[in-house]
Amino acid sequence: MRKIKDLRPIKTENGILYAINQLKLPAQVEWVELSTCEKVADAITNMVIRGAPLIGIVAAYGFAIGIRELVEKNEDIQKAKKVLQRLKNTRPTAVNLFWALERMWKKFEKYMREQIDTQEMVKLLFKEAEKIELEDYHANKSIGGYGQVLLPKKVNVLTHCNTGALATSGWGTALGVIRSAYEDGKDITVYVDETRPYLQGSRLTAWELVYEGIPHYLITDNSAGFLMKKGIIDAVIVGADRITASGDVANKIGTYSLSVLAKEHGIPFYVAAPTSTFDLSTESGDQIIIEERSEDEIKNCGGCRIAPEETKAVNYSFDITPASNITAIITEKGIISHVDREHIQKFLKYRGV
Amino acid sequence: MRKIKDLRPIKTENGILYAINQLKLPAQVEWVELSTCEKVADAITNMVIRGAPLIGIVAAYGFAIGIRELVEKNEDIQKAKKVLQRLKNTRPTAVNLFWALERMWKKFEKYMREQIDTQEMVKLLFKEAEKIELEDYHANKSIGGYGQVLLPKKVNVLTHCNTGALATSGWGTALGVIRSAYEDGKDITVYVDETRPYLQGSRLTAWELVYEGIPHYLITDNSAGFLMKKGIIDAVIVGADRITASGDVANKIGTYSLSVLAKEHGIPFYVAAPTSTFDLSTESGDQIIIEERSEDEIKNCGGCRIAPEETKAVNYSFDITPASNITAIITEKGIISHVDREHIQKFLKYRGV
Repeated sequence: MRKIKDLRPIKTENGILYAINQLKLPAQVEWVELSTCEKVADAITNMVIRGAPLIGIVAAYGFAIGIRELVEKNEDIQKAKKVLQRLKNTRPTAVNLFWALERMWKKFEKYMREQIDTQEMVKLLFKEAEKIELEDYHANKSIGGYGQVLLPKKVNVLTHCNTGALATSGWGTALGVIRSAYEDGKDITVYVDETRPYLQGSRLTAWELVYEGIPHYLITDNSAGFLMKKGIIDAVIVGADRITASGDVANKIGTYSLSVLAKEHGIPFYVAAPTSTFDLSTESGDQIIIEERSEDEIKNCGGCRIAPEETKAVNYSFDITPASNITAIITEKGIISHVDREHIQKFLKYRGV
Repeated sequence: MRKIKDLRPIKTENGILYAINQLKLPAQVEWVELSTCEKVADAITNMVIRGAPLIGIVAAYGFAIGIRELVEKNEDIQKAKKVLQRLKNTRPTAVNLFWALERMWKKFEKYMREQIDTQEMVKLLFKEAEKIELEDYHANKSIGGYGQVLLPKKVNVLTHCNTGALATSGWGTALGVIRSAYEDGKDITVYVDETRPYLQGSRLTAWELVYEGIPHYLITDNSAGFLMKKGIIDAVIVGADRITASGDVANKIGTYSLSVLAKEHGIPFYVAAPTSTFDLSTESGDQIIIEERSEDEIKNCGGCRIAPEETKAVNYSFDITPASNITAIITEKGIISHVDREHIQKFLKYRGV
């Protein structure tokens, strides 16, 4: 077993929430103080923190912080609804955001019904946010434990985007599998797709791997196929933003191409995500609306314009990988190794999800 | 027929060679003076000019310039070998460089044998370089003419890197086919891979398309597969840096991935290149030396560091696309529509190459 430094992207000190400002990475590790609900909401919208699980966790803390503000200022507690709404309006697509806020709101309503003292209620809400954070952390460790078994003792793994500690409460999902394999003593080398346009790979994943001392190489997204052909890549592991009932996976743009390339070269293609990522109300990938972001993300890089003013860019943030291209889905409850509607349904049912 | 502005990347004025500094595009059109062999060699190595055909043309001028320097400084003409070697050592992968220099060297040896006056020889060498430039231009127009016939009247074409006027004497190879289709009045829309790390797509191809007014969208390299799956792409056209006897193609990194994705989606995958790109002495792609460039190209973008200092990057400049993934090769002598050793050999023989 190797020692893992166990990076955490947020911390609380004396009731104050702090987060690593991910906009400043990798150049600088700056902890920002998120002392008000407004500051939390801005941090989510401006991508100071990002990654679906982490967005949910930070929003949960944001709700507790917002209620504390009401209590400290002796404001009407009914304004809690405004706090909730402010946080819900930060990002449109992250399912975890709404899931975490819903859970916090239910607790709040319960405490109101029970007429618990407001000071005490604030404490309990903070405890609930901590619980959400801790549950996420344990789920990730579990994903890592299950997933790393799939990797041979000596292995070169390709990953895309950032699915690590910085996207979660810690450890990570796909990158958590890599962390667990490294911790277990495996001879692992990570090939990191830089992940244009937002460069989560070069800015965040590479930084996490440097932090842990895990061997890695950064590559351009368009190199992956050639490296596979050269026989350098043994496995691909990615995360997921949403998994449909039939097993299609919405994830960062570029994931689909990787799945086709992996299939072409007979390389296993794994998806690592908590069971909360399953959206059984969506039947298949073509029903998922793909977010299109500003073309400026493509036309600029590092604060510098890299394309003509007159040029238009198409910027899909996500793509859909069909179930048939996925070797297995790694969850905190175990591994789904036949990715289709029937096996997913059975798996979730038997695991009590 | 539409009007084409017909961009040219180099010019000679009073015996001085000037080139558009492609490092400064798209922000600025700067002409640099390449008055010495050393300046020419540096311009090739540092990618002030790039693109396989243009490298060959500029190297040919560079040889004439180098011989002129020897003559003007009354140096031993036997140093011509050093001039040749200096230029050969600039870039390893593109065959056109060696082809053009070989042609210049043969002329030089002929003039030496014929004991032509050195002043006159310099003039003749410049004429030969001009001839290479002009032949390239005519070849490109011819490639465009043959290639555009393959495209339907309304078509979305994906292209990679820059294979346009800026990569050649003018017009271009793969982008020349697009120019010809547009000139012919076809309803063509170009999807431009940005082509990391050097961004030849966003910096150069998009700029050429703006220059000509040809409709286009810029995309990240990792979007190509998803756009194909959505049915948006009708054809892929790329250039080539070297084509082996068996039809394997060395081209900009990312080309191989595109060929696999095109095959997966049943989309024709065309390679456009002059016959001078064929290297029959190389049997197959695995024998081609692939240039690895500095990791700084990946770790920096727009003058800004985008990855941790400690991270190592792997930067293959080119990859190999197997003949079996190529629908057709478009040359100035016609189209090779069965890409294998036998058909290539016959084609080149019957066309007198």
